Formats: sequence, structure tokens, C-alpha cells
Amino acid sequence: MKQSFKQSLSLSKIRIDDQYWNRYTKLIPEKVIPYQWEILNDRVKDAAPSYCLRNFRIAAGEEKGQHKGMVFQDSDVAKWLEAVAYSLALAPDPELEKNADDVIALVGRAQEKDGYLNTYFTLNEPERKWKNLMEGHELYCAGHFIEAAVAYFETTGKKAFLNIVCCLADHICRVFGPGEDQCHGYPGHPEIELALVRLYHTTGVKRYLDTAKYFIDIRGSKPNYFIEEINRADYKLIHSHLEKIDLKYFQSHLPVLEQDTAEGHSVRAIYLYCAMADIAEEYDDSELLERCRILWNNIVQKRMYITGGVGSSGYLERFTTDYDLPNDSNYSETCASIALAMFGLRMARITKDASYFDTVERALYNTVRAGISLEGDRYFYVNPLEVWPQACMDFTSRSHVKSVRQKWFDCACCPTNVARTFTSLGSYIYFIDKTDDSSEVYINLFIQNKASFDIDGKPVNISVKTDYPRSGLVEIAVNSEAAPFAINIRMPDFADDFTVSLNGNFINGEIKNNYFRLPCITANDEIKVLFTLKPRIIFANPKVHQNCGKAAIVRGPEVFCFEEIDNGSNLAALSLDTNSALKEIWQDDVLGGIMMIKARGKRLLEPDLPDSFSDKFIPETKDMELKALPYGYWGNRKNPGEMIVWLRTL
Amino acid sequence: MKQSFKQSLSLSKIRIDDQYWNRYTKLIPEKVIPYQWEILNDRVKDAAPSYCLRNFRIAAGEEKGQHKGMVFQDSDVAKWLEAVAYSLALAPDPELEKNADDVIALVGRAQEKDGYLNTYFTLNEPERKWKNLMEGHELYCAGHFIEAAVAYFETTGKKAFLNIVCCLADHICRVFGPGEDQCHGYPGHPEIELALVRLYHTTGVKRYLDTAKYFIDIRGSKPNYFIEEINRADYKLIHSHLEKIDLKYFQSHLPVLEQDTAEGHSVRAIYLYCAMADIAEEYDDSELLERCRILWNNIVQKRMYITGGVGSSGYLERFTTDYDLPNDSNYSETCASIALAMFGLRMARITKDASYFDTVERALYNTVRAGISLEGDRYFYVNPLEVWPQACMDFTSRSHVKSVRQKWFDCACCPTNVARTFTSLGSYIYFIDKTDDSSEVYINLFIQNKASFDIDGKPVNISVKTDYPRSGLVEIAVNSEAAPFAINIRMPDFADDFTVSLNGNFINGEIKNNYFRLPCITANDEIKVLFTLKPRIIFANPKVHQNCGKAAIVRGPEVFCFEEIDNGSNLAALSLDTNSALKEIWQDDVLGGIMMIKARGKRLLEPDLPDSFSDKFIPETKDMELKALPYGYWGNRKNPGEMIVWLRTL
Repeated sequence: MKQSFKQSLSLSKIRIDDQYWNRYTKLIPEKVIPYQWEILNDRVKDAAPSYCLRNFRIAAGEEKGQHKGMVFQDSDVAKWLEAVAYSLALAPDPELEKNADDVIALVGRAQEKDGYLNTYFTLNEPERKWKNLMEGHELYCAGHFIEAAVAYFETTGKKAFLNIVCCLADHICRVFGPGEDQCHGYPGHPEIELALVRLYHTTGVKRYLDTAKYFIDIRGSKPNYFIEEINRADYKLIHSHLEKIDLKYFQSHLPVLEQDTAEGHSVRAIYLYCAMADIAEEYDDSELLERCRILWNNIVQKRMYITGGVGSSGYLERFTTDYDLPNDSNYSETCASIALAMFGLRMARITKDASYFDTVERALYNTVRAGISLEGDRYFYVNPLEVWPQACMDFTSRSHVKSVRQKWFDCACCPTNVARTFTSLGSYIYFIDKTDDSSEVYINLFIQNKASFDIDGKPVNISVKTDYPRSGLVEIAVNSEAAPFAINIRMPDFADDFTVSLNGNFINGEIKNNYFRLPCITANDEIKVLFTLKPRIIFANPKVHQNCGKAAIVRGPEVFCFEEIDNGSNLAALSLDTNSALKEIWQDDVLGGIMMIKARGKRLLEPDLPDSFSDKFIPETKDMELKALPYGYWGNRKNPGEMIVWLRTL
Repeated sequence: MKQSFKQSLSLSKIRIDDQYWNRYTKLIPEKVIPYQWEILNDRVKDAAPSYCLRNFRIAAGEEKGQHKGMVFQDSDVAKWLEAVAYSLALAPDPELEKNADDVIALVGRAQEKDGYLNTYFTLNEPERKWKNLMEGHELYCAGHFIEAAVAYFETTGKKAFLNIVCCLADHICRVFGPGEDQCHGYPGHPEIELALVRLYHTTGVKRYLDTAKYFIDIRGSKPNYFIEEINRADYKLIHSHLEKIDLKYFQSHLPVLEQDTAEGHSVRAIYLYCAMADIAEEYDDSELLERCRILWNNIVQKRMYITGGVGSSGYLERFTTDYDLPNDSNYSETCASIALAMFGLRMARITKDASYFDTVERALYNTVRAGISLEGDRYFYVNPLEVWPQACMDFTSRSHVKSVRQKWFDCACCPTNVARTFTSLGSYIYFIDKTDDSSEVYINLFIQNKASFDIDGKPVNISVKTDYPRSGLVEIAVNSEAAPFAINIRMPDFADDFTVSLNGNFINGEIKNNYFRLPCITANDEIKVLFTLKPRIIFANPKVHQNCGKAAIVRGPEVFCFEEIDNGSNLAALSLDTNSALKEIWQDDVLGGIMMIKARGKRLLEPDLPDSFSDKFIPETKDMELKALPYGYWGNRKNPGEMIVWLRTL
């Protein structure tokens, strides 16, 4: 096993206690995981049914019935277990661990003797295992079980789950590969690839890495596997909307080394790119890494919303084309922004370039946060930038857009994904890099926490104190017995103005790849960083047709939006005075304390005539004081209503 | 049979020879009908296959095979025959008539002994006849055959086709009705209702009218027929996208007398409203007529595009909600605007109110005209108001939007519908109304033509000379041997300024219901009407979220749009100076001579950075002279590109 010298600091070594993030990091163990446990057991009234644990009981022969739910329903259990694992790393909870152990045992009993694990195929189509890789999601579900098991092993040290997934992974390594008697296919929904790399890191078993690499290498080669698969006599379609196959949807239109735009289903695409980054790192493959850079830049520059959302098409949850960013009909799936954060984390770790974290932060602070209510029991799957509730009607082009968060979904990938992401938020904060010459600590996100780790066997404690993003002050106190080491602090893209002081003395440090480097930290050093955090107006590139002449307000990592409750109905009628002074107001009385921003603007008055258009209309406006709140908080107040991010400008 | 006193003048009595409309009225017989004949015979390369005549040959037992194409594929043959009938009324064509007679004979041979006529069910599901009214389209296809046969009989006097459809209609009247042994259902796609009224007008057979009324009366009553239908043990779904039933889609959510908003599939809805108007007229049903008024107003005021397009949702081609009029993702099906013209024609005829023709004209001059290329062999099904070709991608939310007209469609309702509409354009021009007190001639559309008819057995000839809408001059020369009669000339909504002269003397006449009445026309009277036709700027009601702050240019009945070829790429970056003088320019060199309009405006410059958004962008504009052409002509020049109707304003 090649050692990755630069690593995220493991979760158990970090304790987050942050004014901004506690809402979520405490919410997940306290409310979300128990709520989702009820959901997985189908005990929540009026919520879309999960069937998850029921499917496993049937597969284990302990209950009668057919598989119900999506073909990938198992993955909800896996992601819940992964969230539980991270949660247990943060704080022990014997009852939760008991429930998790029970579920793991049940999963084990549902596993077939040869290692195969998938309740849909075991129950409904046992004769069609591995015969519909394009739609079947067997490898996708396997990937999530592997991720969960690695996390559970790392937290608890218990091997039962790890054994189950090793048995499953061994089965996969036997079935898939370059051998004549092996299947030369790859998953329609990537996920197994990055999971096998994780399993390799934990177990050191090289064949897991080899098979991950095989899946990447074979993808998109000719003759196309999916085309061959659907042309087989015994092929059977699972999803009718895939009647006409579009290889781009599955990132199978070209070999990965020839792909230069982010295409197709956004989550599939970015999970694939994560694995490509992993493989590039493991094999020192600069060509593959360059491909990751190209795909990353294509997304971030041309196919991503200001909120860190991706997936411009409501139909098929997918990328479309450069600069096509419709605000009110897009998908911008919560999971896709999670995937983007995962991809950025990998790219930053590999390249030592902090700029990737500008996007990681954009995704986490905006779209991913918007994906869950402040109560933890309501979720957005789709994250538009403009919502007009009356127009989000069932059986129309905008039926996927919900103006209020939902209890659960028929396709419920997002809620558990948010849970595993926020419980593992700590893993985004630090990188530790040990080279022959130096020890380097990288601080990527500004979240109040305490971290304890070793450098060369000597204990190092770092305490970060901050109320970021309310203010831009970050105080880092070190207590170290180790030899002097470097601390590299990310300088976010919005930080035009900042000061850094070491033990009270302002210093000019080297900034490299957007990290400010303090080369020689030792003993009880105290670092103080102050970013100027002020609201700013961002203009859209006119290449984005939908946003021509429009502007948005941001402050630090947060994008702001306007809600009906603060600005009246018909938010499209508002325009922003871009010369206006933006006033920030901390509002203790709103949602337990949030930053809001006031700006001058105008509202188009509605004429007396009922007509949609008329040459009798003379546009009239009135002055308005506009009020915005961070996008991540929208839709949390009592009256669900309109929301808008991009405003027309004066 | 109740005589409808106010009638459209029959087609054979009108000869259109109009600079503007000849492009279409001559094109349809010369090019479109022959082209569509090739299509129906599957002889056009690279066009979506029709299978139409093949299906009939198989159903007639003259060829082997299965039905192919849509469940309503037969209706394309019917609408083609209807267009042929109108075309033969305009000019004899023995070869075409021979082909039509052959097709009619083939249709007759494919008809079952009991009168049943539908190749899909005859061939593929003979045991399921009338068992899926919601999706089956048997009554829809029957309606189109009836309309075609009535038209063919009126033109040729031949009875073969009429006999076929009477036999079919008799079968339908036996199957459907209030009797205990009859089916209490009604069609998922209205059309049979208005067709049965037409058949009643031609044959005088009252049961056809009764059955039409029955279909209207029973619609939406409880228990809902469609719900009962799908719950039957032998129910079988035809279209998977209808898995979850939405009664609004089928206008079956309420009895028609309780419907007050236009809902669901636009063509279905408006064909229904046409029939409601017919029944209201036949039965002097003021309550039903009032319902038609309410539905008409809902459409025209709140759910219709400035182009006369309807159907805001790309998914399911349907109405959504008031003031929801997205420009780049809407459906605005060509057929739906045809239906709107048909509905408006009926409402104007019944109410003697010319204002309905403002919308009829809006639909015909803009969306319907856009539906067909100037060559006659390419068609739009979907008529957006903003097209960005790169973003109209397959397998995305905008896959239904085409940036170039297509040779044919898998679902090909529109091309033949355009053909039958433009060949019968003459029937929109006049109403003749004979009351006890007076004879009234109504002139609704300004199209150069000669009409000959009788009033009380005395010949009247009217010659209309105009180059409308190039100019607003309309000269009406009468040659009459009849007693003095009234001519009522429609005053369009845009005609703020007009003069009317009779034999050279300006007159002030009575305007009632938007008709200017000349009460006493006789012998060789000459009327001259001059409307001031100038380009105007129309503002959108800010209630239309998508058009806040936007304006469009119109001139007379025509809406103008901006094309990439005249204004460069990225039309969303343009803005219109609404204080600009609008210059009209007749351009002989463009598309054989069209009116174009120049206006001042600006273009947002694209920044050097590739990013979609940035606080480094400072919006910069350059002055532009903008150039617009009538919407009905867009996409006819060589380089397909962007198009936009509503521009941001300065």
C-alpha cells in the first residue's frame, strides 16, 4: 500500500464546537439520525415510504414479501450507517451503536454466500445479477456499504461490517476485471471506485485498488459496454425513462482521459471524478490528474451555480452545456454538491492548492446546508435559485422543484448523504503532510474546533477559535511538544484584505497556492487571522443567458437570497441598486440568530389590468429596502413562499 | 336542425389572393400537401416515419404487420384529407383528388363492419376497444375523420367518405350515451364533440348533436370515469408517463360548468372549449357560453404568450398557472394556437364581438405561421419565445425545444393541422348574418380576397384589396344586386387611429363590439379603411415573473423577434431602449420581402474571465442598433441560431 503522506486528519482527533456549524453537527446525532432511523423502519407518518430495513429482513428470510422501492434503496441504509459511524466518532451512544450493530448483522444475514449483497436483485431478479450494470446500481450500493463499513471500523474497531464488505468486494473483484472469464463492464452510477480505494487504504488489499483502477480505465472504451449490454437477448429495462440510451448521461461516451467537459447525471459524474483523483494520486498519474483539473475547471467556471449547485437540467438531474444555468428549473441536487465538496477535498489534498476549498466551502455553506431544515427532519433534494411556489406544480416541467422541504423522498439519496457529510465535516478542516524536510499542517475551513494529533510521535494540540462567518477573526492556539512545523492557512478567494499575527506581531508571510504559510510553529504559539468580511455584489457573466443584467449578494462563503416573508410577493419584480451600501445586520430574533443584509432597490408595480402584456402598461417602480438572508437558511421560517438569489439591477 | 343564422362564409365562395398569405395558401397545395403525401407513404428520407397508410393497408388486410406509431397515428391521415378537401375547394386537382379517393377507399376497407374505425386497436388490441378512453384516442381520431369527411363532402359532393364517418358516428352514438347499456365515458382527448356538431350541421342527424352534448355534459362528473376505468381489472396503461393520473390534464377534474381556469393539455382543453361554444350556440345555453367566456378570458389574459402560444409546461404540453409564461422552456404547441383560433372564431361568431379576432389574428399571424417553414417542408411543434440552440439538448429539460424546424415528428399532429388551417383560412374572413331586420356582413380579417355570395337570392360580390399588414389600407369594393345590407368591419385592438370612407367621403360610424358598422351598403359602394400601423413597444405585466422589466415589439398583428443573424450571438445580453424611435424598413432582399424594425439598444459585453460569476465583473455595455423581424418568419434563414422576443429594457 502506497502511503498517502498528505492526509485529512482523522475524525476522532477533531472536536468541532462552532457557533455556526453546531446547528448541524449537533443536530445530526440528536435529531437527524434518530429521525432517519424511524424512516428506515417506515414509522414516520405521511412520509414517502423507505422499505429499506424491510427489504433486508425479507432478503434475510426473516419476513415475507417482495423488494419495494428503488433499485438502489439499499444505499440509504448504507449512508445512514456511515453517518452513524461518524457520529459515534464524535460522541459515544451505546443505544445507537446497538441499533447499528443489529442492522449490520441483518445486512450480513441478507448477504449471499458468494458475497453478493443487494436486496433488489436477491429478491426480485436473482437471475439478472450483474446483467444490467447501466441501471442496476449493484456496484453503487456496494460502494456505499464499503464506505460505511470502513467508517464503522475506523470508529468502533469492530470488524463484522468490514468482513461483510470485504467478502462483497472480493466477489466484485472476481466478477469484474480484464480476465477472459471476467466481466468487462463498469457501473452506470460510479461510487464503487472511490469506495474500493477507501477499502484499500483501510485493509491494504491491493486488488481493491486494482479493481477501482480497472473500472476507471475501462470506462467509455469501445465497443461500449452499455450498448453491448442492452443489445443482449436477455436485457431487461428497469427505468422506462432510459428507453433511449444517452452515453453521456452515464459518463460512458468517451474514455475518461478524453473527457473534457462535465456531462450527464451530476452525482454520477462527480463521484467518478473523485475516484479519478484518487487513482491519479495512488498511481502518480499526472495525465489523469490533469484530466481531473480540466473537469473541475469546466464545472466550477462554466457549469456551477453561485450556490455551489450543479445539474442545470431538471430532467435527468444532469449537466447541460457551458453557461446554461437556469434559476427556477434546475436540479442542483443536494448530493451533487456533496460530491463536489468531496472532489474539491481530494484535489486540494493532492495539489496542495487551497483554491479548491473556495468551491468546497461554497457547496457546504450554501447548497448542502439548504438541503436540510434547521429542525433536521425536512429535506430539499432540488435546490433552485428562484422559487415561485404557485408555478412548482405537479405534472409540469417544474414538478421536481419543491418550495418546502419534504419529509422524505421516493428516491431518498440526499437526506442520508447530508447526515454523513455533516457528521464528517471535521475531516475537511485539516491536512497533515509529512515530508523529509518538514511537517506541514494545513487549515482549510474556519470552524471552531480542537484537534489533537502527533508529529513524529510528539503530541500537538491545536485550538481554533472563531465565529466565522459572522466575523473574519480566526484565532489559532497551538500547544505542541513536537519539533517546529509549518501551519498553512487557507486564504479564501474573497479575502482581499486580511492580517495575520503570530504571538501578537503582524507578519508578512509567503502565500503559495492560496495558503498563507507560517513556517516555524512551536510550543505555545498563537496565530490570529483577520479577514475583512463584508457583503459584496457579484455580477453574472452575460454568457449566462438567464442572468444577464443580474447581480447577487454574497458575504464570505455565504450567498444571500431574498425571501417573500421579508420582501413581499413577486420577487422577480425586485431590482437591486448595485451602488447601494449593503448593510449587514445580525438578527438574534431570526432563526436563532443569523446575519441579514439590507440593500436599496426598487419594485415594479403591478398594473390594474389583468393582462399579461399590454401597450397600456407603463412600468412604474417604487423604492424598496431589500432584505436578504443566507441561502442555506431559506425556507426555514413559517410561511413558505418565494425565494430568489439573482436580482435584476438598477 | 337548428339553423345557425350567423355563419362563416363557406370556403368555396372565397378566393384569397393576398401578398402576405399567398406564401402559405399557395404553398400548401403546391408543396405541403404533396410533401405530406410522401411522408404518409414513408417515402421521405431521414424523416421520422409516419406508418400511416401502411397501418391502414394492414388493417384492411392488404399487407402484413403490426400497427406502428402513436395510438393516434390515424389522425394524421384524417387531417391530411381535410387539408386536401379545402385545397380542392380552392382549385381543382384531379390527381390529388384521385389520391384522396384512394385513401378514403382504403380507410373504408379498414373500417370494421359495425362502423368501428381505428387501426391501432383493430390491429394491436382488438379486445381493448373503448376500454381506455383516457389514453386511447379512438374518439379523437374519429373526430378528425368526421371533420375531414364533412369537408370532403362539402367540396366534392362525393358521399363515400361521409358514409364511412356516419357509420362510425352511428357506432359511437350506440356505444356512448346515458342508456343503461351504454358507456358513460368521454374522450381523454376532446375533438369528437366539435366534429359531431359539424356532422350534424351537414347531415341534420340530431343524434350526432345529442352525443356531442352528452360528452360535454358527462365530463368531469362523479364518480370520475377515468378513475373508474383505470381501476378496472382489465385496464392496461398505454403511455407510461401517465402512470400517476392527473385529472386536470384531461379536463376531467370538474364538470365543465364548474371549470374556470384553462387546465391541462392545451390542445385537449381548447378543442373541448370549442365544442362547449358549439353546444352553447346550438342549445342557446347562456350558462355554458358564460363558461366559455370565463375560460377564454383566463387563457387570453393570464395564460397566453404575446405570440398567441399556449402551454407553458414543456412536460405534458400543458397549461400551468396564471402568469407563468417561461420563454425558453414552454411548449406553445402549434396545434394549441390553431385550437385557440378555432375557439376565438366560434366565440366571435356567437357573440358578434370582434375582439375575439385580436387573439385569432395573434395566433394565426405568429405562432401558427411560425409552425411551418417558408418552403413548406419543415415544421415546429414547439414554439418558444427565446431559443438558445446550444441549450436545447436531447435528454434534458429542454429537449422538446428545437432550434430548427423538423422534417417530421414521431408525434406529428402539427404539420397536417397547419395544412388544414391555412387551406381553410378563408373561412375566418367573413360572417354573414341574416336577421328579420337586416342582413349583416362581418369582415374579420384583412386578407385580399374576392367573395361571392347571395343575400336573399341576390348576388353580392365583395372584393377586398389590401397589403395588410405591410400597410393598414383596406379597400372594399362591393358589387351587389341585393337590398341594402350592413358591413361590419373589425377594428383591431391596435387600431387607435383609423379612418373609414364610403365612396370617398370620410364617415363616423357606430362601433359596436369592436366592429365599425356601415349600415347601408348597396350596388357599387366602395369602402376604404386606413389603420395607422406602426411599431409599438409592449411591456409585460410584472406578474409574469419571467418577463419582469422586459418589453417586446409589435406592429399590427405581428409580434417581432430578434435573431442571431441580425444581432450577433447571445441575444439575452441585448437590451431595448424603450424611448427609441422604432424604424420600420421593408426589406425586399430578406425572405422574399418582409417588414423589419430597427431600434436602439445596448449589448452587455462579455468579460475576459471564463467564470460564470465574479465580483471582478463590472457590467459594460455598448450601443447597438437592434433589428427585429416578424416572429412568424424566424428560423427561415440559412444559419439557424438564437431568437428572442422579450428583451430587457434600458
